[in-house]
Amino acid sequence: MKHLLSIADLTPDEITGLMDEADRFADSLRDREVRKLPTLRGRTVFTLFYENSTRTRSSFETAGKWMSADVINISAASSSVKKGESLKDTALTLRAVGADAIIIRHPSSGAARQVAGWVGRGGDGISVLNAGDGAHEHPTQALLDAVTLRSRLGHVDGARIVIVGDLLHSRVARSDALLFTALGAHVTFVAPATLRAPGMEKWVNPHGGTGTVTVTDDMDSALDSADAVMMLRVQAERMNGGFFPSHREYAARYGLSEARAARLQDHTVIMHPGPMLRGMEISDSVADAPNTVVLQQVSTGVHVRMAALFTLLVGAEGSAE
Amino acid sequence: MKHLLSIADLTPDEITGLMDEADRFADSLRDREVRKLPTLRGRTVFTLFYENSTRTRSSFETAGKWMSADVINISAASSSVKKGESLKDTALTLRAVGADAIIIRHPSSGAARQVAGWVGRGGDGISVLNAGDGAHEHPTQALLDAVTLRSRLGHVDGARIVIVGDLLHSRVARSDALLFTALGAHVTFVAPATLRAPGMEKWVNPHGGTGTVTVTDDMDSALDSADAVMMLRVQAERMNGGFFPSHREYAARYGLSEARAARLQDHTVIMHPGPMLRGMEISDSVADAPNTVVLQQVSTGVHVRMAALFTLLVGAEGSAE
Amino acid sequence: MKHLLSIADLTPDEITGLMDEADRFADSLRDREVRKLPTLRGRTVFTLFYENSTRTRSSFETAGKWMSADVINISAASSSVKKGESLKDTALTLRAVGADAIIIRHPSSGAARQVAGWVGRGGDGISVLNAGDGAHEHPTQALLDAVTLRSRLGHVDGARIVIVGDLLHSRVARSDALLFTALGAHVTFVAPATLRAPGMEKWVNPHGGTGTVTVTDDMDSALDSADAVMMLRVQAERMNGGFFPSHREYAARYGLSEARAARLQDHTVIMHPGPMLRGMEISDSVADAPNTVVLQQVSTGVHVRMAALFTLLVGAEGSAE
Repeated sequence: MKHLLSIADLTPDEITGLMDEADRFADSLRDREVRKLPTLRGRTVFTLFYENSTRTRSSFETAGKWMSADVINISAASSSVKKGESLKDTALTLRAVGADAIIIRHPSSGAARQVAGWVGRGGDGISVLNAGDGAHEHPTQALLDAVTLRSRLGHVDGARIVIVGDLLHSRVARSDALLFTALGAHVTFVAPATLRAPGMEKWVNPHGGTGTVTVTDDMDSALDSADAVMMLRVQAERMNGGFFPSHREYAARYGLSEARAARLQDHTVIMHPGPMLRGMEISDSVADAPNTVVLQQVSTGVHVRMAALFTLLVGAEGSAE
Repeated sequence: MKHLLSIADLTPDEITGLMDEADRFADSLRDREVRKLPTLRGRTVFTLFYENSTRTRSSFETAGKWMSADVINISAASSSVKKGESLKDTALTLRAVGADAIIIRHPSSGAARQVAGWVGRGGDGISVLNAGDGAHEHPTQALLDAVTLRSRLGHVDGARIVIVGDLLHSRVARSDALLFTALGAHVTFVAPATLRAPGMEKWVNPHGGTGTVTVTDDMDSALDSADAVMMLRVQAERMNGGFFPSHREYAARYGLSEARAARLQDHTVIMHPGPMLRGMEISDSVADAPNTVVLQQVSTGVHVRMAALFTLLVGAEGSAE
Repeated sequence: MKHLLSIADLTPDEITGLMDEADRFADSLRDREVRKLPTLRGRTVFTLFYENSTRTRSSFETAGKWMSADVINISAASSSVKKGESLKDTALTLRAVGADAIIIRHPSSGAARQVAGWVGRGGDGISVLNAGDGAHEHPTQALLDAVTLRSRLGHVDGARIVIVGDLLHSRVARSDALLFTALGAHVTFVAPATLRAPGMEKWVNPHGGTGTVTVTDDMDSALDSADAVMMLRVQAERMNGGFFPSHREYAARYGLSEARAARLQDHTVIMHPGPMLRGMEISDSVADAPNTVVLQQVSTGVHVRMAALFTLLVGAEGSAE
């Protein structure tokens, strides 16, 4: 594996391999007094973020530093982007500076793959990790969702996962569906018509897996049989208004209220990729309930990113790729 | 000691303990060719700054790095704060990412204590260091002031310390008074009526100490017997105008001019927490005078922050807390 | 050598010494599996950038980290600059925090030398590296240009180097001319009258060297005999308009088009300090042509900055300085 650009690129085996690697990193850190592995010593990892982020950037930075990599942060706000440099030249420059990997977040769908096309080829090709590209994909988020869910349910195969909210602007929803279907889970999307993405019924992993995708606007029926509920962030900054009548109405129809949470099965896991807008997508008490695994998702995220960086930068060396 | 939130929390012994630890770090660095201690290797420290800062953030970052910690910076400008995430969720997220300590600067008084309440409890509770919360406290600043003063005067007990300026908006003034009174010093506040904080006569350490606090607007009388003069920054960005007639008048009545400095006792130490507005709070030549210890304060700040991080992250392990 | 402020300060021997050191670092990294030298372990390097930058800041950060230095970034956007602190106090503060070196980029010509005057004196004086000061100098850029050119041509002495574009605002052009003339190269500047700097004919190294500087507005004649062509960035952000009629006309008269590139000698090297505005200063295909060494310049930049930091922080210790 050279890059991590899209869950759609990964076979079920590759997905499971990354998830197992993440669990191994979690185990190996748990036993250590000093959370510092020499794994990536002498490797240089750049984060190149064209959108603001706390958790994803700091999660990748933590993952890199815990493996002794040199991590260098570039944010669009203080970069040459303002001087008119193209994304291509920026990426090639970072490779020339000495990057072994570029972790990119960008508002345009497909940006990470473009960058991989520019910097990933040839003998001096380096690895690219997609940390979110527009409304397209966010593969490490889907991987951490799956690792978290597997640890709670014991399995993902056959699980019924309801994903609620702004599917139109959500890279998380797409990556999740592509991953969960690969592992045999059944995904139900719940969203108002204005917040659905075209063709989302087909967000099924192309490399196999027995999972399915269904779309509905009846949240309550969907919740009845759910093993997991994933509440998406309402991406207000991506909307120009008009997607739903009011915040109050959205919360009433699509928010995970206490009443709705009370009807869930005892074992049902509640997830959110964060940052949460409490009282909007999810009520305050539900956000803090025992079945809500938002913070476990965050912790698992570091292990997943360690697994991804390790697989791309070290694991690949022994492989044919 | 689990957190460092407020000087008001600390007994005189705890204060002296941190000051002594800072001196020990200064000594141990002085003798080393390589300024790098393994003390915090494998520990992860986040700075979470909701206000701009050069010296405090870089001082903490330096302190962490010299003890081999992984230091990760989050600034509000590039964080999820803009996405509407609550301070609570941001703090819990950083703990979940893997923070061993969060160093927070925030415009709201009490923010650091709130964060400690959220992330500091339970078996996985982590440490919180207050790097300035609104007009409330800035404990490491007070500690570095005290260490600096002790090194110059040989003692703090009985010292007469005049603190001049914008007391209304100053977290430094409050932390200083709470600390210096704990150590038996006599603090005199000088400020125009519009820049006084309500109840400042009572900023006496609640855990003991024989120090006192007095308030006056007669700067010149106060200076006559001062062993130390602390000039505060006029926090123009916190003011909406109307606090004093003009910059010129402020400088005339409350600035440390050459003429005023000339009347000080030979041993009197001149301090400023920085950044200084030369010509406003302090004249250019006084800022650079031999008795002015502004830069020693800065250097000492790194040792104080090393002492604080060490005490919270390592020292606590052997203790009952 | 205590500081690296200006190529004008350096003798031909000092320039060659830094270039050779850069080549040695390149060699020593090439042979290593782990790109991490212990050279600057325990040293603390601050980058203090008052202008945005991707490549220069990340190049210096990479150079420092590969030599195990602690690197701490300060950008004007999040610093006390906004609180009105003077450059002098900011610089003295960073020294007091514990900087062994300050790498500064500043919009004012002469800023780096001023900083060196403030922080570089006395027993506790530290090193200052100029990472670009206004339209004055950018010495590490010139050094990396020279190292790159030497590797391509086998020599710099006698080489004919054409530098094209916005000479008025270019710190790169001045540093390049001062360096290349020291090494015996012949520099020809090409620019419209409105983008020439006064006195640029005299940008000849004052410490010796047999190089020359010529100024012309006839780009095509200059290119005929060029061994290297350096296309400068059109610094649109520095201009208030009026410097040339239109972007289209600029590109036609002073851009390196495919047609112009086709007339160059086979061995002629094409350079650009970046970031490039493709289609403006340089056509897309020329930017990616085999003789274009833009990315080699970037890679070499890290080695040059390693050499500079090493020479100032370690090399100086054994010398008389």
